[in-house]
Amino acid sequence: MRVDGRQYNQLRNVEMISDYIKHAEGSVLMCVGDTKVICTASVEERVPPFLRGSGKGWVTAEYSMLPRATQSRTIRESSKGKVGGRTMEIQRLIGRSLRSVVQLDRLGERTIWLDCDVIQADGGTRTASITGAFVAVAQAIHGLVKSGALDSVPITDFLAATSVGIVDGQPCLDLCYEEDSQAKVDMNVVMTGSGKYVEIQGTGEESPFTPEELHQLLSLASLGTEQLIRFQKDVLQEAARGIGGN
Amino acid sequence: MRVDGRQYNQLRNVEMISDYIKHAEGSVLMCVGDTKVICTASVEERVPPFLRGSGKGWVTAEYSMLPRATQSRTIRESSKGKVGGRTMEIQRLIGRSLRSVVQLDRLGERTIWLDCDVIQADGGTRTASITGAFVAVAQAIHGLVKSGALDSVPITDFLAATSVGIVDGQPCLDLCYEEDSQAKVDMNVVMTGSGKYVEIQGTGEESPFTPEELHQLLSLASLGTEQLIRFQKDVLQEAARGIGGN
Amino acid sequence: MRVDGRQYNQLRNVEMISDYIKHAEGSVLMCVGDTKVICTASVEERVPPFLRGSGKGWVTAEYSMLPRATQSRTIRESSKGKVGGRTMEIQRLIGRSLRSVVQLDRLGERTIWLDCDVIQADGGTRTASITGAFVAVAQAIHGLVKSGALDSVPITDFLAATSVGIVDGQPCLDLCYEEDSQAKVDMNVVMTGSGKYVEIQGTGEESPFTPEELHQLLSLASLGTEQLIRFQKDVLQEAARGIGGN
Amino acid sequence: MRVDGRQYNQLRNVEMISDYIKHAEGSVLMCVGDTKVICTASVEERVPPFLRGSGKGWVTAEYSMLPRATQSRTIRESSKGKVGGRTMEIQRLIGRSLRSVVQLDRLGERTIWLDCDVIQADGGTRTASITGAFVAVAQAIHGLVKSGALDSVPITDFLAATSVGIVDGQPCLDLCYEEDSQAKVDMNVVMTGSGKYVEIQGTGEESPFTPEELHQLLSLASLGTEQLIRFQKDVLQEAARGIGGN
Amino acid sequence: MRVDGRQYNQLRNVEMISDYIKHAEGSVLMCVGDTKVICTASVEERVPPFLRGSGKGWVTAEYSMLPRATQSRTIRESSKGKVGGRTMEIQRLIGRSLRSVVQLDRLGERTIWLDCDVIQADGGTRTASITGAFVAVAQAIHGLVKSGALDSVPITDFLAATSVGIVDGQPCLDLCYEEDSQAKVDMNVVMTGSGKYVEIQGTGEESPFTPEELHQLLSLASLGTEQLIRFQKDVLQEAARGIGGN
Amino acid sequence: MRVDGRQYNQLRNVEMISDYIKHAEGSVLMCVGDTKVICTASVEERVPPFLRGSGKGWVTAEYSMLPRATQSRTIRESSKGKVGGRTMEIQRLIGRSLRSVVQLDRLGERTIWLDCDVIQADGGTRTASITGAFVAVAQAIHGLVKSGALDSVPITDFLAATSVGIVDGQPCLDLCYEEDSQAKVDMNVVMTGSGKYVEIQGTGEESPFTPEELHQLLSLASLGTEQLIRFQKDVLQEAARGIGGN
Repeated sequence: MRVDGRQYNQLRNVEMISDYIKHAEGSVLMCVGDTKVICTASVEERVPPFLRGSGKGWVTAEYSMLPRATQSRTIRESSKGKVGGRTMEIQRLIGRSLRSVVQLDRLGERTIWLDCDVIQADGGTRTASITGAFVAVAQAIHGLVKSGALDSVPITDFLAATSVGIVDGQPCLDLCYEEDSQAKVDMNVVMTGSGKYVEIQGTGEESPFTPEELHQLLSLASLGTEQLIRFQKDVLQEAARGIGGN
Repeated sequence: MRVDGRQYNQLRNVEMISDYIKHAEGSVLMCVGDTKVICTASVEERVPPFLRGSGKGWVTAEYSMLPRATQSRTIRESSKGKVGGRTMEIQRLIGRSLRSVVQLDRLGERTIWLDCDVIQADGGTRTASITGAFVAVAQAIHGLVKSGALDSVPITDFLAATSVGIVDGQPCLDLCYEEDSQAKVDMNVVMTGSGKYVEIQGTGEESPFTPEELHQLLSLASLGTEQLIRFQKDVLQEAARGIGGN
Repeated sequence: MRVDGRQYNQLRNVEMISDYIKHAEGSVLMCVGDTKVICTASVEERVPPFLRGSGKGWVTAEYSMLPRATQSRTIRESSKGKVGGRTMEIQRLIGRSLRSVVQLDRLGERTIWLDCDVIQADGGTRTASITGAFVAVAQAIHGLVKSGALDSVPITDFLAATSVGIVDGQPCLDLCYEEDSQAKVDMNVVMTGSGKYVEIQGTGEESPFTPEELHQLLSLASLGTEQLIRFQKDVLQEAARGIGGN
Repeated sequence: MRVDGRQYNQLRNVEMISDYIKHAEGSVLMCVGDTKVICTASVEERVPPFLRGSGKGWVTAEYSMLPRATQSRTIRESSKGKVGGRTMEIQRLIGRSLRSVVQLDRLGERTIWLDCDVIQADGGTRTASITGAFVAVAQAIHGLVKSGALDSVPITDFLAATSVGIVDGQPCLDLCYEEDSQAKVDMNVVMTGSGKYVEIQGTGEESPFTPEELHQLLSLASLGTEQLIRFQKDVLQEAARGIGGN
Repeated sequence: MRVDGRQYNQLRNVEMISDYIKHAEGSVLMCVGDTKVICTASVEERVPPFLRGSGKGWVTAEYSMLPRATQSRTIRESSKGKVGGRTMEIQRLIGRSLRSVVQLDRLGERTIWLDCDVIQADGGTRTASITGAFVAVAQAIHGLVKSGALDSVPITDFLAATSVGIVDGQPCLDLCYEEDSQAKVDMNVVMTGSGKYVEIQGTGEESPFTPEELHQLLSLASLGTEQLIRFQKDVLQEAARGIGGN
Repeated sequence: MRVDGRQYNQLRNVEMISDYIKHAEGSVLMCVGDTKVICTASVEERVPPFLRGSGKGWVTAEYSMLPRATQSRTIRESSKGKVGGRTMEIQRLIGRSLRSVVQLDRLGERTIWLDCDVIQADGGTRTASITGAFVAVAQAIHGLVKSGALDSVPITDFLAATSVGIVDGQPCLDLCYEEDSQAKVDMNVVMTGSGKYVEIQGTGEESPFTPEELHQLLSLASLGTEQLIRFQKDVLQEAARGIGGN
């Protein structure tokens, strides 16, 4: 039995409230247990300098936490005057993950900005951000298709992420903060709807792990991302059409 | 008739959802029309250097907007590496306003941080922040009294803020974004429950204004803040007790 | 009787030494009591990006204090690597105030930079800066007219600023530093030659104020700005012609 | 056949020149093919604030590239005024990896700084940095034991890292820059002398990968790190004694 | 004949207005031709960390130019967020020069800050700053002696600086801006009252110079600093007593 | 006898390993005693804004030290977020010195970046950087001539630098760190192959120096730079041809 009563292979409650921010082209309040992230997608009709004139588009992400998303207040990065290493690492991960399923050469010379702002944190904020950002980007692209800016949906597959880890010797799915802070091994896995890996980031800072443990963790991650993708399909409804060429 | 059908002396819909963030000592989702601000109060058991050993406490505020709170996406201040002038001006205003009704010498050597994060903006974000921050600080102080850290409530009066302005020649209460961008005169007024002024910030950048117009604007502001304070009392319930010595 | 022997409605000694810096298009050493500010106007033949191609001009201000303008030395903002909130607030105020009397659409696509550098501070530096900056901008625009770059003077009215406040329960005009640090209410008022308000920034951080007190303070401010505008006319001489269409 | 004539499971030439920098407590010039990194270990007799008084030590890393380590010159991060996301990600990875084999509670209240400065880059700079940093830290700790500051060697195992990836459909070991820039999947693996994983960071930004491909890549990584650890033992000689309790 | 009618060995008009800033412990408006620098000395009763507990004092300098000190407006370093290389070089030079004649071990554990703010620039701002800073520091130290904080004057000699250069093939003393911008060789020389060198900084970026030319330039510098020291003695009057043990 | 057994007029061992970094257009590992600097020259086919369209080229330098080049570890400037005064001063000196012998108007609209990265420091790093940077720039320009981008070599003379100083009352050539930290007078001299001065930077912070001492120091510097230029000719070989029009 886990600290919050779940089975080792059980996700926390998942809720996705779409169209959460009225100005954005795509937006969702992504809740996984007590972790809550506002994910928005913003379409900008230009690309970064290195892509100008290439005919290609770009997808990029920014991630942040409100100061009191955490148990004790954290200082704002704007006050410190620089973005920290953890934040940079996470936003690079989100951007890279989403780009793996968006066909940039079919997007046109436009950028989709994905903003993931954690308003309440209880573990797994980066994986919740990726899962929510997929919903937002799918909505934004659906809007581009509806408006005629795009002919078809340049998304090759669904995409979701979850964390897995070894807590008290037991491989577990979807760690909450309390579990995460005790885990000896901690792994974030980003997977597609067809069960392929987009990112695997596993770290055994506290204690190295064996190939057998790796195998068990990856199985749990697969289980979790499958369920998250079912939630995505439910909330996206019409906007899910055309993803992966369907 | 105004752009959204209101009377010249009518507030937008006001909603305050308290205990919005589970980790914070005080928190409210403050909604004034489509303007939505998460206000949290965090209690820290120490004070800035200039107050150490003085026996006095401190109240300070930080303000920010999510990138897509606005109609087109704005760049994060953390990415720019510095906090802009508008943000600094607003957070100084929020801090100063709240300090005017909190008796710092009765607060003990602790700091209350007020974080006002705009998740959706439609005009009046700074005044909504002040009105919401009052609720959060009152909750946090109520918690200190309940836990025995304080004997009584060191808040001298209620406090709320609203914007007023002259739109198409007509003094109006509580401008939405569309009105604000057309207003010739724009004024933010912070008032107490007993009808005194804490801050008046009026600017006629587009066109100077007469003493008569000033008088009309201040009357509307008084009307608006009275109503906002009634909302505060409703949401605070038990936590309203002891404010102003009652 | 006030700390320096003045009446409650009396300005400090005012001195304006024009053409103080030989390189600048307009410049004045603005002295109000022991407060001394070098105000310069610099004409740049281009505008910020948001105005390019609009045919409009721009007026903007920067404000700073020498480290030893103050009683104890203050650290330079260049050493700290960032401009503080107080400085930003003041330079935004100066810029906004001056733009209210300059017709930007008649200025041509050029920027006038107003630099206000306090070399000695004794209270009221922001209002002295505004009053001096008006002289500098009028000189610079006079130069543009004389050189034929402009046909007529695109300044709609004179502009001056003063501080007022409640010291020991007494509303007073033009606070010096010692008064300012004891005042319960502190207000900066920017007014035009025709007696209209451009900016009112009043704060009762120490203690909220009543509508009656507000009325008394505004009357004193009106008295003070009238006198300051008379000094401006004296020092501007020929350069005062054409202001307000005269 | 690979671009530089190697087999798919073959490392590039490895050279480690130890005691490369005379001032440092440990240092090595780590060469893997044309990738050359100066790795130094510096012992500082104090710890970061969060460990003061805990009796524990700390191991941390910094990573940088000389401007002309790369094919075209890159701008210095000191000139840009901030450390980029890629650099932060790498130095966090190096620090975390090395901490996994150093027993911080047996190190005493001291910090070991690992500086990895790439003087010539040809792919795999982060894995070469980890492999070289292990040598430097082992030397520095050997010095602490020799001087009597430590009783025994608080290192639990050897540690090395290599990159693997899928190039033209073929899983390959130890990618050079040309291969890396064409790889569809790119993975960095940090392993211990006993064949356990410390870090797995795999990314299929260009194309997601299957569990079967993951398996092949991890086998190659295991092969590579085994060989690298043999090189470490050779260069460390006497300083290898005591690692892992031997 | 030079551009402003001077002989090759003639200084510009020198004026020193002492006690220029009322708050400072020492201050002078230093004018050399149209170059005008406000030099202040501020006494702080503590030293930088590296001197704490040493019983020694410290002398340090900061240098800046008002934006419109120059012919066209220059951007503030506070706005740029960093102090430029030229400024750093100059303030290091001023600090080093002044420290050469102040006996830090007789100053007590206090810091003297020398602020040199150029309000109008016409060449030779760094040498004018040094010459003026000497006056300010002598006044501040005189004050410490008068107040009893020091027994005697810990200044070993007078100190002044001037620029020399080769203009149109002719070695010249005290270059104005127009000369400076045409000079092939440019040298700043800081000398003591007894004719010794404290700093020689000569640069032939445009064209290397011969030992013979160096000799001529140094002779002119000696002539100039002698005269400047006579001005210093005049303005310091009583505060000159005790310098160099007299 | 000096601390390391040298005569007062003797250089330390000099070694120059050219083509040290494979990507750079010119590169040398410059060793003077235990001081080791990697100097690279990078050719960029564009110039800074102030030269665009002028037909002229540019030569600029950057200087840095690895954290553990020094006896105790120094913090990286990238971590501090700003380049320090000492670094700026040195890189300005290197750039200025090299520009004095390169004919920018014959270089074409291209920039040569000189990067001097100290990997081990034992005094004289700035002069070793200049001497090494000359080798790198000569190689890079030789490459431009060989590739036909330039017709002839736009270098007017050889250039080398050394430090001299007064240690224990004795003028000495080429100070090592231990000598440098005890020297009362410290001077860096940059000279051409024809024995002219490009830069003289002498400082007597500890104690002013006489004209006679200056004379002795300059003689030693002349001796040292002559020898360094002989080393340059040896290592440059074919690339030395055409320098100074030969």
